[in-house]
Amino acid sequence: MKATIYDVAREAGVSIATVSQVINGKGKISEERRNEIFGIMARLDYRPSVIAAALTGKKTYTLGLLVPDISNPFFAEMARAVEDQAHHAGYSVVICSTHNEDERIERYLMLLQQKSIDGLIIGTGMDNNDLLTPLVSKDIPIVSIARETRSPHTLPVLVNDYAGGRLAARHLLEQGHTRIAVIAESLKVSSSRERIRGVREALHEAGLELPDAFVSAGGHDLLSEGKRQALALLQPAERPTALFCCNDLLAIGALQAAKELILRVPEELSIVGFDNTILASVTDPPLTTIAQPIEEMGKLAVDLLISELGKAAKKRTHERTVIEPELVVRSSTAAPQ
Amino acid sequence: MKATIYDVAREAGVSIATVSQVINGKGKISEERRNEIFGIMARLDYRPSVIAAALTGKKTYTLGLLVPDISNPFFAEMARAVEDQAHHAGYSVVICSTHNEDERIERYLMLLQQKSIDGLIIGTGMDNNDLLTPLVSKDIPIVSIARETRSPHTLPVLVNDYAGGRLAARHLLEQGHTRIAVIAESLKVSSSRERIRGVREALHEAGLELPDAFVSAGGHDLLSEGKRQALALLQPAERPTALFCCNDLLAIGALQAAKELILRVPEELSIVGFDNTILASVTDPPLTTIAQPIEEMGKLAVDLLISELGKAAKKRTHERTVIEPELVVRSSTAAPQ
Repeated sequence: MKATIYDVAREAGVSIATVSQVINGKGKISEERRNEIFGIMARLDYRPSVIAAALTGKKTYTLGLLVPDISNPFFAEMARAVEDQAHHAGYSVVICSTHNEDERIERYLMLLQQKSIDGLIIGTGMDNNDLLTPLVSKDIPIVSIARETRSPHTLPVLVNDYAGGRLAARHLLEQGHTRIAVIAESLKVSSSRERIRGVREALHEAGLELPDAFVSAGGHDLLSEGKRQALALLQPAERPTALFCCNDLLAIGALQAAKELILRVPEELSIVGFDNTILASVTDPPLTTIAQPIEEMGKLAVDLLISELGKAAKKRTHERTVIEPELVVRSSTAAPQ
Repeated sequence: MKATIYDVAREAGVSIATVSQVINGKGKISEERRNEIFGIMARLDYRPSVIAAALTGKKTYTLGLLVPDISNPFFAEMARAVEDQAHHAGYSVVICSTHNEDERIERYLMLLQQKSIDGLIIGTGMDNNDLLTPLVSKDIPIVSIARETRSPHTLPVLVNDYAGGRLAARHLLEQGHTRIAVIAESLKVSSSRERIRGVREALHEAGLELPDAFVSAGGHDLLSEGKRQALALLQPAERPTALFCCNDLLAIGALQAAKELILRVPEELSIVGFDNTILASVTDPPLTTIAQPIEEMGKLAVDLLISELGKAAKKRTHERTVIEPELVVRSSTAAPQ
């Protein structure tokens, strides 16, 4: 088992605070005692973690991550990627899940600021930029991941949502679909709007339209919303032969709707998702989807945030980081009958 | 849009700290000014959140949640349940994902203690109880969820893992299976050991044995581990006709192994999972699994933790809370050929 700071403290007969002081070259500890404690560390093969250094330093080596719903595998996988990269760089991550409620967003932002994080990553859509004010006024850098905010103080790390929408639509067009409908989480979220714009333009280039009746959005319980909206779109008379869903959870809801309507996927209905979470590879049938490079985005967001730490607000980067999505073809799409 | 403390502060031309003082009846603010600010709150329909009260109080109204891997849907769904219940009770939750590494567990426990949480919920297995010492010495109550620790200072909220193992084995026995193998995450985790004990006893009552060669365990990357271990167990000559996997991710790995070996599920191989996360209902075929009441466990853990807050350590409860699991039959199990 790996030695901890407690093992060192116990072995040396001192408190962990003392061990921490030794590590950081602080405190009133005799040279002899200091060397003795270093000896114990070496013997136990204890490597001090950055957090021990943080005990006495000004930086907290803590990053905050705000997500709208941790039970959505996209954000859970993103949280894991962020935590992994932060850990490699010597930082800890506290994750807060806001359930898309302004009240909880406010609460968590205030909490994170009180808890003295060094930097913040937000994956939560935000209507009210003022909520970021307390962090901005403390010069805490903020990276927004997979979402754009309207605040000039956040550095976005995004997937090219527009290109993702185009990829999905072009795949369906190539298979011969002309009646393509879209299910989105919310038209208030920039990523949904951009994906729909991509679909619309791809259709337009093929001489087709995306009728308003074929765009459906709204609701936070994505699985049941996906089902409900698909059921509404799939009412007979001129129904779509393909659905592009703006995330995998909505697509799974659509799969459930197809089952309920006894429509075979992909023979009678093609479905494309977005995200490529673990869910997409295990569904029945496995889901054709637009892959967001979740791990890469998480890493980039952390690297960018860390590079901004300690810079004065004026010297900060203002570039948008945009990563290209990829089409992953599985078994939920085919030519229309 | 809902008014926030910032809206009130802006409208009143004061800082949010002043608004907070007004809410809490503190600070040197004239009666007149106080009433004016209350008037603005009423006009904007601003309802102060508990966090504002916490700004001036001693309690932080923050709970910590430590999970081994947030990208495992079981823990992500648990985090959501914990956050929801805590929110209803006026508490915020900071989530930390430890990736089962002692170093990260130590780091996050130290961090949470520094950040002055009121109470802690741990879903992480822990070899080294000493890691909890700094929290215990601060009288911070600790609830362990879905895992037992060896520490006398944690209050466990558990599913009856033994009964879960029995349920799985009896379901397979009733279908006529006699060659049942088990894939576990780790034999170091109490829940895995108890589930295997349940399988073993159910088999024993049926006059059967669970041979050592039919118990496989180890590894943290559950999906690839499930596949690897299933491939090893399914080598021909006397191979099992059914696999009980100690969680849904391992079961999905086993489904992938069956696909690779061109073994049809459930005709040629039955698979039972454990957890009943969102994954179980979307796999191909949908997974028969033992349902943990994730939401109920999350709620109970929060309620229990909050009821312990402020109690002196000596007056604390020492009861174990145990919830019964349920068998959910889907399409991954059938009689052996």
